[in-house]
Amino acid sequence: MAITQSESPAVRIDHLSGVERRIQQFFADRLVDAAGYGSEYEHLWKAAARASRGGKRVRPMLVLLAHEGLHGADGDGALDLAVAFELLHTAFLLHDDVIDGDEVRRGVPNLAGEFGTDARRRSISEARAEQWGRTAAILAGDLLIHFSQSLVARLDVEHATRTALLDVLDRGVFVTAAGELADVSYSVGVREALLTDVLAMTERKTAAYSFEAPLVAGAILAGADRACVVALAEYGRLLGVAFQLGDDLLGTFGAERITGKSVINDLREGKETPLIAFARATGEWVQLDGLLGKPDLSRDEAARLRSALQRCGARDFVESLVSEYARDAVAALQVPAMPARLALQLEAFAGTCVGRIS
Amino acid sequence: MAITQSESPAVRIDHLSGVERRIQQFFADRLVDAAGYGSEYEHLWKAAARASRGGKRVRPMLVLLAHEGLHGADGDGALDLAVAFELLHTAFLLHDDVIDGDEVRRGVPNLAGEFGTDARRRSISEARAEQWGRTAAILAGDLLIHFSQSLVARLDVEHATRTALLDVLDRGVFVTAAGELADVSYSVGVREALLTDVLAMTERKTAAYSFEAPLVAGAILAGADRACVVALAEYGRLLGVAFQLGDDLLGTFGAERITGKSVINDLREGKETPLIAFARATGEWVQLDGLLGKPDLSRDEAARLRSALQRCGARDFVESLVSEYARDAVAALQVPAMPARLALQLEAFAGTCVGRIS
Repeated sequence: MAITQSESPAVRIDHLSGVERRIQQFFADRLVDAAGYGSEYEHLWKAAARASRGGKRVRPMLVLLAHEGLHGADGDGALDLAVAFELLHTAFLLHDDVIDGDEVRRGVPNLAGEFGTDARRRSISEARAEQWGRTAAILAGDLLIHFSQSLVARLDVEHATRTALLDVLDRGVFVTAAGELADVSYSVGVREALLTDVLAMTERKTAAYSFEAPLVAGAILAGADRACVVALAEYGRLLGVAFQLGDDLLGTFGAERITGKSVINDLREGKETPLIAFARATGEWVQLDGLLGKPDLSRDEAARLRSALQRCGARDFVESLVSEYARDAVAALQVPAMPARLALQLEAFAGTCVGRIS
Repeated sequence: MAITQSESPAVRIDHLSGVERRIQQFFADRLVDAAGYGSEYEHLWKAAARASRGGKRVRPMLVLLAHEGLHGADGDGALDLAVAFELLHTAFLLHDDVIDGDEVRRGVPNLAGEFGTDARRRSISEARAEQWGRTAAILAGDLLIHFSQSLVARLDVEHATRTALLDVLDRGVFVTAAGELADVSYSVGVREALLTDVLAMTERKTAAYSFEAPLVAGAILAGADRACVVALAEYGRLLGVAFQLGDDLLGTFGAERITGKSVINDLREGKETPLIAFARATGEWVQLDGLLGKPDLSRDEAARLRSALQRCGARDFVESLVSEYARDAVAALQVPAMPARLALQLEAFAGTCVGRIS
């Protein structure tokens, strides 16, 4: 993913660094509190802080973009809201890894991996080491879900604004869980992964809390017009899908050197993406089905899968979906109440989502 | 555990049934929302509702007891707060089972067990069926942690009251996670289970969110005097430990017919309780260490462990700890600001904690 601060000129760097500072401060405060509860608990908070680093802060950026773009005056509240979304995101990543039984993320041990490795070093049995890693990751995620919501609950805003913000958060978490459950239902085989269902899953698992909710929350905090809020929700929902589909494409056809993202992991994991769902429905797939999800898939086999995905039209199809979703997202912004500058910024942001896959 | 409504005359039955109704309504509302997200997600919410049933509602009772006893006027808010604690409790139980890899609770399949069994019925591999169960239980817990906090955030109270309540919840969740991490550190063997540490763990894992936080939150909502809040915190902390130690005793020496609680599971699981920590420090233990945590521990072997726990003085020691903690809890209530009626009710409640083990 190629979203950098320079590509989103709308949010000034000092604001995103304000988010960074506040995230660091949040963890620093918890670490002080954790000191009285044993070295393992301190380790847990340090590892949670590490887990929250290195992201591109897309969710905070969208909160701040909407809040500023709609002339919001609660800069302090917007920063807290931005941090809340980032903590929630970290929590979901941590629990996603527990669900998948992964101890590695982006090539380095994740929080569960750190704890598991530590236990193995002390000659603790494999099953117990895994349990230790799982425990740490579940608890860290639980803590971040709780504290994320606590930040929102503490905003010093009017009752109606708070309720509206809480509605957004409630819906975001509710829909994300539905999407995550659907995603796993496909990968374990409880449910067949049909194209429309996989698209709906993408919208629920990623678009809702990562794009739609941050924009809507930022707008509500700014006291925006209802028409604006509705338009931003639609933009976020559609762009979120475009973004995730782009990620799926980069995860199979991207240039690893540029994206830093493996192009074999998704295929090895047998991730059920719209790319795969489209291909399944074609004749091309039959002979390749055994390769998808093969844990030791070779580079040659991965290349065969990629060729098949291309030949059967799946790649072209998903590439055009990305363009369509991004275009519809931008079109959703065309309401009279939308400030022109914000619309332009969001249009530019949508452009980066399409641009990175072309 | 023998806490029944009749033993806590303080909280009128119509209030606890108000809690029941509100819990049912909460799940009914979510189930309506879930209908648009696939049958698995509806199943998840139905199973979460089942997971929340059958408890003794100790936490709601303590919230209502403190709020009423301190002449609180926000009956509606107190009910929401009571429900919030119960949802949080269900979430912790769900995640506790995932941490322990359990698919059974109290002899029946838990939420993970239901989902896992369903997958096995469809001939899905064991590893994937387990993943499906784990996924469902993690997500259900995440949802309940979030919605628990959302209920508190929505209370229509003054900013200072909300902040104070959120502080209580933040601390409750923070300390519980520390206690849970410590508990697992002992059972996987990352840390040695010394008596003082295991007692501290008991206080953190159980007393903090199950006794201290509900009482304190109910008192804060009632606008109670600070001296009362501090006294209730101390009472809750101490009684919570007494209560958990009593549970440990009943889990080893109880009458299954009366408690409905197995007296062999804790020994088979190798649960590190103060009972065990005391025994470990005595000569008696050496020859029995191999039995604790033996998954197929026989009734005879369990009887040998029980005899050893008795002979070495561990049982007597923990029984007297229960009495001491309960006595100190009651003593903490003796502050001028404490309403006499509330003090009597809490004293009676402490009496049931001691009474059930004697």
